[in-house]
Amino acid sequence: MDLYFSPMACSMATRIALYEAGAEARFFEVDPPSKTLLQDGSDFRVVNPLGLVPTLRTDDGLILTENAAILQHVAERFPDSPIAAGTGIERTRLQQWLCFIGTELHKSLFQPLLSQKAPPEAKAYALENGCSKLDYLDKHLAGRDFLLDRFSVADAYLSTVLNWTLVIPQLDLGHWPAIKAYHAKMRERPSVMRAVGEEFELFKAEQARHRVAA
Amino acid sequence: MDLYFSPMACSMATRIALYEAGAEARFFEVDPPSKTLLQDGSDFRVVNPLGLVPTLRTDDGLILTENAAILQHVAERFPDSPIAAGTGIERTRLQQWLCFIGTELHKSLFQPLLSQKAPPEAKAYALENGCSKLDYLDKHLAGRDFLLDRFSVADAYLSTVLNWTLVIPQLDLGHWPAIKAYHAKMRERPSVMRAVGEEFELFKAEQARHRVAA
Repeated sequence: MDLYFSPMACSMATRIALYEAGAEARFFEVDPPSKTLLQDGSDFRVVNPLGLVPTLRTDDGLILTENAAILQHVAERFPDSPIAAGTGIERTRLQQWLCFIGTELHKSLFQPLLSQKAPPEAKAYALENGCSKLDYLDKHLAGRDFLLDRFSVADAYLSTVLNWTLVIPQLDLGHWPAIKAYHAKMRERPSVMRAVGEEFELFKAEQARHRVAA
Repeated sequence: MDLYFSPMACSMATRIALYEAGAEARFFEVDPPSKTLLQDGSDFRVVNPLGLVPTLRTDDGLILTENAAILQHVAERFPDSPIAAGTGIERTRLQQWLCFIGTELHKSLFQPLLSQKAPPEAKAYALENGCSKLDYLDKHLAGRDFLLDRFSVADAYLSTVLNWTLVIPQLDLGHWPAIKAYHAKMRERPSVMRAVGEEFELFKAEQARHRVAA
């Protein structure tokens, strides 16, 4: 399968999932501002008209979009791996956390705080609403290693999102000790460590490219 | 099962799904500002600490939260109904649309536009980013009756979200003719018509209560 990604973006969750599964995959880097593929300068919007990562081309050549759907596809695709999807209530709980991370954290809280285009008022509004969601998450994670009873693609997603707190001064994880401890532990996990290490190098290169271009 | 809902809120998608499935269910109304149950004045946060609808108590007594997870649970629970969950790629596509509606439309676009607390700058930012998502949706819906090849819980969710355009002057569906036609057709569907009819009455009562209280 082919993963279209941008360094340190939410697509890193899928990279982590693929590493956990020991899956063969090709990775195509998308330049965020220009929405072009770094490899050949072609227009990524031909692959996904929304221009959003992650986008996944499956082994059958289908194009999948949306983080929660892609992560669950990868989990279903590798039933003998540590990220294998569960069934019944386990699957429902996975969907619950993927939805919570996607809607309450990623889109409502982190997206405006990370955006260079969002006005200060939009950031303040996001922060005002978002902190109670982190309180809720902190309570859930107290005394736990994972969101569910074992590592899942929801942990891959959450650890990716939490990385962003490192560049958001308004979100000091010191206020949420269980989240902070969880994040520290996640970052020691080999799949996460490898993904962060690789993508951080690419991220620095991306920043340097755009400094030169500016 | 028990559905905790607020009138005309995103929890209406689950009501529609239950009507489609012909399922027996009890409905408990949550007063949005006070987060109390209308029935007995008790604190809804005891059921769901986030205070968010929909919340579902399953037949086994489990509490489920998050729209995408609840809708998929209902779809799985009624395999012989029109909203029965598919498998494989059909399920992945369902997850894709549930995620798109939840993240790009509901939380990023509609939530700030509907909020009485969101500052004008946050609304403008949401609108600026959101219109391209409606363009994308409009293209997908052109010539289609449903998001997938048949009615699914994603249509229940999308039709619920689109109802909100009726009170958001900035979002005139005349700009997106395929979405407008889809929404009009959805509103004629018996399950949707029944849900909207019932909840609109409750919504008017809610508004009247709060006018008296103000």
